[in-house]
Amino acid sequence: MTTLSTARPDPVVAAPPRLELRTPAAIDVFTRILTHGPIGRIDITRQTGLSQAAVTKAVTPLIVEGFVVVDDEQQRGLAPGRPVYPLRVMPNSLLSIGVKVNADEVIGVATTMRAEIIHSVHLPVADTSVETIVTAVVSAVSSLRADLGDSAARVAGIGVSVSGDVDTRGGVVRDSALLGWHEVPLGRILADELQSPVLIENDVRALTIAEQWFGVGVDAGTFAIVTIGAGIGCGLYVNGDVVSGANGVAGEIGHLPLAPESYLCTCGRHGCVEAVASSGSILAAIRASEERPELSLQDAIDLAHAGNASAVAAFDRAGRVIGTAVAAMVNLVGPEIVLVAGESVANYDLYETRLREAFAEHAFGSAANARIVTTSHTFDDWARGAAAAVIRATVRGEQMVAA
Amino acid sequence: MTTLSTARPDPVVAAPPRLELRTPAAIDVFTRILTHGPIGRIDITRQTGLSQAAVTKAVTPLIVEGFVVVDDEQQRGLAPGRPVYPLRVMPNSLLSIGVKVNADEVIGVATTMRAEIIHSVHLPVADTSVETIVTAVVSAVSSLRADLGDSAARVAGIGVSVSGDVDTRGGVVRDSALLGWHEVPLGRILADELQSPVLIENDVRALTIAEQWFGVGVDAGTFAIVTIGAGIGCGLYVNGDVVSGANGVAGEIGHLPLAPESYLCTCGRHGCVEAVASSGSILAAIRASEERPELSLQDAIDLAHAGNASAVAAFDRAGRVIGTAVAAMVNLVGPEIVLVAGESVANYDLYETRLREAFAEHAFGSAANARIVTTSHTFDDWARGAAAAVIRATVRGEQMVAA
Ligand SMILES: [Zn+2]
Ligand SMILES: [Zn+2]
Repeated sequence: MTTLSTARPDPVVAAPPRLELRTPAAIDVFTRILTHGPIGRIDITRQTGLSQAAVTKAVTPLIVEGFVVVDDEQQRGLAPGRPVYPLRVMPNSLLSIGVKVNADEVIGVATTMRAEIIHSVHLPVADTSVETIVTAVVSAVSSLRADLGDSAARVAGIGVSVSGDVDTRGGVVRDSALLGWHEVPLGRILADELQSPVLIENDVRALTIAEQWFGVGVDAGTFAIVTIGAGIGCGLYVNGDVVSGANGVAGEIGHLPLAPESYLCTCGRHGCVEAVASSGSILAAIRASEERPELSLQDAIDLAHAGNASAVAAFDRAGRVIGTAVAAMVNLVGPEIVLVAGESVANYDLYETRLREAFAEHAFGSAANARIVTTSHTFDDWARGAAAAVIRATVRGEQMVAA
Repeated sequence: MTTLSTARPDPVVAAPPRLELRTPAAIDVFTRILTHGPIGRIDITRQTGLSQAAVTKAVTPLIVEGFVVVDDEQQRGLAPGRPVYPLRVMPNSLLSIGVKVNADEVIGVATTMRAEIIHSVHLPVADTSVETIVTAVVSAVSSLRADLGDSAARVAGIGVSVSGDVDTRGGVVRDSALLGWHEVPLGRILADELQSPVLIENDVRALTIAEQWFGVGVDAGTFAIVTIGAGIGCGLYVNGDVVSGANGVAGEIGHLPLAPESYLCTCGRHGCVEAVASSGSILAAIRASEERPELSLQDAIDLAHAGNASAVAAFDRAGRVIGTAVAAMVNLVGPEIVLVAGESVANYDLYETRLREAFAEHAFGSAANARIVTTSHTFDDWARGAAAAVIRATVRGEQMVAA
């Protein structure tokens, strides 16, 4: 026998196991098990309003195909009373890959079906040309597939999230100020390159999908995510689903005209929230007032923590405008919880007091009862959002851009 | 035999025919027939994702009980081809009564199950004390029951809509600036007085429910209603349902801080949309600039139509602020259609140009594609909204305040 090459083989990219949920009832039942499992059949019946027969009809093929397993809690010694045999998904029966595109790096993660991160990769990019970004995304995905080895065949699709106006159905980035892109058919390009279904999603919406199924949305009837950092974004979960906007635009809290007219925004308008509250705007204000154009964002944060008056004033102004914007959003949409996320959560102490003051001042009546909470946040979380969007599309049978 | 009194008898208030939809499938099927009928069984199957057997199982009792009928289109000469036997509701099999409470009058309507107005009544009120309003609502309902005669027994419930912060589940008006009410258990009071289930709803939300099931929502995936007049309100329909707000507050577009700080709002805040754009604010501005405190709203409208500079300026300012507020809402929520309603629609020409300019200026990216349309609007429409809320609660089996 000849010795086969010892070089690391290209991972096999076969078709992933087919999760075919053909009826709304089957989708509903599987979603409950995925997001609320381990869960007993009786609870599924109660929550979905389906008959026990309908639940059993939906569950049986899922067990046969290996997507769902029955826990014997008595055997596991967890339930001293009668056995309940709760159902849960096999987290590795389907995997997902998510990639977040930033202006300076591409971040990829491979996750289980429950959006748990298994592997991650960060690749710097020199520019934001379509060619550079596509090359980086392809490298990131190849690296994650290699990490997964044989399991790469279980990846249901590749999710890619970018900031801006995205046509998810068509896989087109219609407008991204961050990347300087206009009408880029990123889904089509990547599906051809990667030979995999590809889903393109707005980054904040992807983050909201992850919270909907695997975070705060499991228990909250309605929530909002407000991301603070280089941009100010907002994702909304209302009436059982993420708000996507009839024209693909929603949650554009960063361009509400709530700041003084004198502030010019990168979008060309005056008085946008981002013109005062994005990390770039805060830095620019501190550089100008200190007459120190060489300051980095970290320098500015350090100055504020050290009590420098103009630095504190810039963060105070940002906190006030963000708090006013959160109140405007809460008055309109009425979420139960507002989750503050994004990279500036790391120095949320600089915003919090003024943010809460302005929120309390502008929240209308009982809307003020909305709870504002922060979440720890890493760049990997953005990529995880893209992976979660693939999982949701797979469960719901929603179309991705086909290979 | 003795001659019975010729005085008009009190109408019999018997229990209405029971529409009992016990499963989500039955509710879904009936809702399709109610809102999209006449509709064929195959279309119901397609739209709901239910099996043909499940549709038949849901439809059969509805036909037996007289809530649904089968149209024979061939007999009616409408369909020259094969018979399709579409289903539609019997509009008089269940009726509804809706009442809108204003500061100066109470308006009631009796409607069919499809929210078609059969009778209406307007009763002026001298003040907004709870006692005065309750008396007027009871009189309005009595009058409508008398108009309905024997059919009054088919009324499923009494819907009452008021402006302000309303706890629909508890039937409590938590805060109504217009009425000067705080924590009024209006549902309990009226259910006892009227011996009927009562539903208390926010007025704009009730209007949105009517559009959801019997108006623009039949075809649009998502829409907003913006009401202009004594107040500026907003109702939202997103992800298949009206947005109600986790704490009962949503759509408070009138108090977004989008006007200059110098304008004081009736809510006590500065810079609210209503502080510039409510009909009261517009009138106050024109009275002040003309130094004519005796002007009526109609005088102010006439002045603007005649080209009076300060009157035109006041309406222009209102139009700009409303247009900015609509853009803020569209940027956040992304509706397909924005329906402009409310009493000021009668002189929408005075707002429209500036409103559309400001909307175009502030709408973000594709959000600008939202269509802004006006609807003719009468005070009866507000009451019809309250009737529609009762119909929706009856179909969904949602609890009203019981008699
Ligand atoms: Zn902007
Ligand atoms: Zn106000």
